[in-house]
Amino acid sequence: MTTDGEARRGRRRGAGRDAKLARAAAGSATQAYIKRKIPYYEILNAEGLEIIEHNADTILEEIGIDFRDDAEALELWRAAGADVQGERVRFPRGLCRKLVMDSAPAIFTQHARNPANSVVIGGDNTVMVPAYGPPFVHDLDKGRRYATIEDFKNFVKLAYMSKSLHHSGGTVCEPVDLPVNKRHFDMVYTHMRYSDKPFMGSVTAPERAEDTVAMAKILFGDEFIDPATGQEKTVVVNLINANSPMTFDETMLGAAKVYARANQACVISPFILAGAMSPVTVAGTAAQILAEALAGMAFVQLVRPGAPVVFGTFASSISMQSGAPTFGSPEPTQVMYIAASLARRLGVPFRSGGGLCASKLPDAQAAYEAANTLQAAAMAGVNFMLHTAGWLEGGLAMGYEKFMMDADQASMLGVLLGGVDMSENRHWMRSAKLGRVIIFWVAPILRQISKVHSGDLTLRTTTVTSNGSRKVHWMPLSVPTNAGNRP
Amino acid sequence: MTTDGEARRGRRRGAGRDAKLARAAAGSATQAYIKRKIPYYEILNAEGLEIIEHNADTILEEIGIDFRDDAEALELWRAAGADVQGERVRFPRGLCRKLVMDSAPAIFTQHARNPANSVVIGGDNTVMVPAYGPPFVHDLDKGRRYATIEDFKNFVKLAYMSKSLHHSGGTVCEPVDLPVNKRHFDMVYTHMRYSDKPFMGSVTAPERAEDTVAMAKILFGDEFIDPATGQEKTVVVNLINANSPMTFDETMLGAAKVYARANQACVISPFILAGAMSPVTVAGTAAQILAEALAGMAFVQLVRPGAPVVFGTFASSISMQSGAPTFGSPEPTQVMYIAASLARRLGVPFRSGGGLCASKLPDAQAAYEAANTLQAAAMAGVNFMLHTAGWLEGGLAMGYEKFMMDADQASMLGVLLGGVDMSENRHWMRSAKLGRVIIFWVAPILRQISKVHSGDLTLRTTTVTSNGSRKVHWMPLSVPTNAGNRP
Repeated sequence: MTTDGEARRGRRRGAGRDAKLARAAAGSATQAYIKRKIPYYEILNAEGLEIIEHNADTILEEIGIDFRDDAEALELWRAAGADVQGERVRFPRGLCRKLVMDSAPAIFTQHARNPANSVVIGGDNTVMVPAYGPPFVHDLDKGRRYATIEDFKNFVKLAYMSKSLHHSGGTVCEPVDLPVNKRHFDMVYTHMRYSDKPFMGSVTAPERAEDTVAMAKILFGDEFIDPATGQEKTVVVNLINANSPMTFDETMLGAAKVYARANQACVISPFILAGAMSPVTVAGTAAQILAEALAGMAFVQLVRPGAPVVFGTFASSISMQSGAPTFGSPEPTQVMYIAASLARRLGVPFRSGGGLCASKLPDAQAAYEAANTLQAAAMAGVNFMLHTAGWLEGGLAMGYEKFMMDADQASMLGVLLGGVDMSENRHWMRSAKLGRVIIFWVAPILRQISKVHSGDLTLRTTTVTSNGSRKVHWMPLSVPTNAGNRP
Repeated sequence: MTTDGEARRGRRRGAGRDAKLARAAAGSATQAYIKRKIPYYEILNAEGLEIIEHNADTILEEIGIDFRDDAEALELWRAAGADVQGERVRFPRGLCRKLVMDSAPAIFTQHARNPANSVVIGGDNTVMVPAYGPPFVHDLDKGRRYATIEDFKNFVKLAYMSKSLHHSGGTVCEPVDLPVNKRHFDMVYTHMRYSDKPFMGSVTAPERAEDTVAMAKILFGDEFIDPATGQEKTVVVNLINANSPMTFDETMLGAAKVYARANQACVISPFILAGAMSPVTVAGTAAQILAEALAGMAFVQLVRPGAPVVFGTFASSISMQSGAPTFGSPEPTQVMYIAASLARRLGVPFRSGGGLCASKLPDAQAAYEAANTLQAAAMAGVNFMLHTAGWLEGGLAMGYEKFMMDADQASMLGVLLGGVDMSENRHWMRSAKLGRVIIFWVAPILRQISKVHSGDLTLRTTTVTSNGSRKVHWMPLSVPTNAGNRP
């Protein structure tokens, strides 16, 4: 028997915990991904894109791509009709494009442990994904230090709680406190344990890719095989970087083969610091990116026709003085716009973008650069927006504050991409009940503000739209909105 | 007679001064404005834009616009066929549009004292202009304080020295240390004295507009009249804000009349905090903006057919809790995209955009918000980008550091808008001399970097493009570019 006081405390504790859980549930009650309702931005016309496609074919035909230390890959290419000299593979014009267009899916579902969080990658969809790869973490209290598995867990939890991030990501930071040969187990397990959003697999060795697939089979159990098709469901997306220029290495090829054979998705991403790994010109860089991505995606289709692939682009420019990469700058933005158009013409999903910056701190430089990249990526039509949140210092550090601010920006972009509501109630304004035009939805408090700013209201105001619904603007969560205002 | 030492010191001083002047001259050797070579972003299709145009006509016909305390304005409207009841003017459908389309120029030149700095406003051109109106200034050393004429001079000088700003602006800050009734003399004089870029006139009273025109006549002298047309050259652009909702007041109408009669340009800008001065919906706000801008621009054409006008938009959303305006948010971006399309359909230049933010400091919030607005404005096709540099705190403060950072962003946008060079030499890559494909322009230092990042280069590198020209990437001036990099 408890006293009333104890019971009250118990209830209070219980109520507190319940409320906290309810808030947590609300926090993770996310729109699974963004459905785009605005047009794409196309920076080049069809003629320009055709020139770049022609040039990519010339690169593939005359220069070719190295497939290193992988005899099976060379054999696959030889059988497909490519010219293989040593490890250099040269491709008849149009071969890679045909392989991709014949069997790569234009759109696919990445299944999450929680089916409500499964995402559809490709088409008019945008999936926002945390940053990938930093060996350091940073916050304003403790500064920059090596990342640990605790940091990794923190970022998985933060991504899980963020409404605007649709994905748990992959190497959200490198847990360098764990041995390299076992680290991938802890990373994949952490995504499984602390999130039910979709996640990315290990690519640092073919056997680690196999471990990822094996763990996914345990996690999904009977659900791993789609009863409708008898095929494996796609449950991990994996980052296969080209070793630009013009090279795929053994590690990446090995991981790609494992994932393709298990029907898991490969993001084929030329990694470009333009001027170092590619021509310094935008048009030349775009041609090289297309050539590398085509070769990689076609290779996946040789391994398993129909395995999901994503055309990836990570392009930065570099300072020609120091060699340091720069972000939020115009040439990579132009490259990204072109690559997005090329991916649509190929009919495959597109990965790029993110809150990229060179700054070491979550400061104004970081924000200008991140916003420039995020917004351009959204306008370009990126489907899989890797590095959306947390990126600092050219990818060397994952920032806690940066993560929160970027997640806020992702939420903003979700509204922008959601389009302009042109339904009758939104665009207008004639009340059936009142029989006259009503253009204002203004609560009493706002009438006062309006009076202060613009003199007396001259029009009738009303507190509801014509069908009684309400509409509010997007507001940031991470910054104050109580600044002064000035006409 | 001087000693050698004195002579040396003299020479050194002289040399130093000469070098400084040379640097200053180089600093102000600016591209006069940006010629856009990339497509506009159109967020709505023609059907959507027609709905908004229809709704604007409905507002003009059924609700009308107040023209306050200006009997002459009402008389002009009566004579033009509008329905005038008291100060409320209602317009037959299409009247305002016809007045604008019949005589407002699609494009015009604003002449600068230095003809090399004259700007062409409209068409595919973008002119970057400093922020306008803040009564406070801010820098990190001295914090926030009331602006003075010294601050005003500083910002005029900074805009003059900035390669990426094409205009001296207007009220770059309010010099509150000067009496209100004489302040405009000092402001206009400062633009004339410390800059030879184009500038804006006073609109705070009709007689101050007259003073501005009189001063411009003194400045330009015989050049004020264009010998080819016998008409006044347009030498000042002036900001005529609608007193939204649906009102033009005596001050703005008086200034507009003075400037129109002198063939000077009026930017007719509905000033909207959406949800307070306009409907909370994007489509409703866009219709109201078009109605107000049409009425204002048509009024200018009644005063003097052919006088240059600019369709202006300043739209922000507000927090429905506090009433504070927000910037860098998605709804105003959508409104701006729509308004830019509407201006193109009308065939008049468009003003909007700028480095808008709510933050009180030049921090990450300021940068995210400013970058979001600047980039969207560039993609939308803003011709006259007011508030490009310096804006803080919802326009209450002009920030020194913010000005420099925003000017850097303007430079970046200039490159983005400059388009993708698809000339043979840029997009490709077959050396006539060598008779083979060359895709790299890589200096020796960069070859090293490339090796570090991507293994040995597998392709032949060369130090020049096929015609021997060089190309470098845009680099920011205001931030370090020596951050680490990570594949």
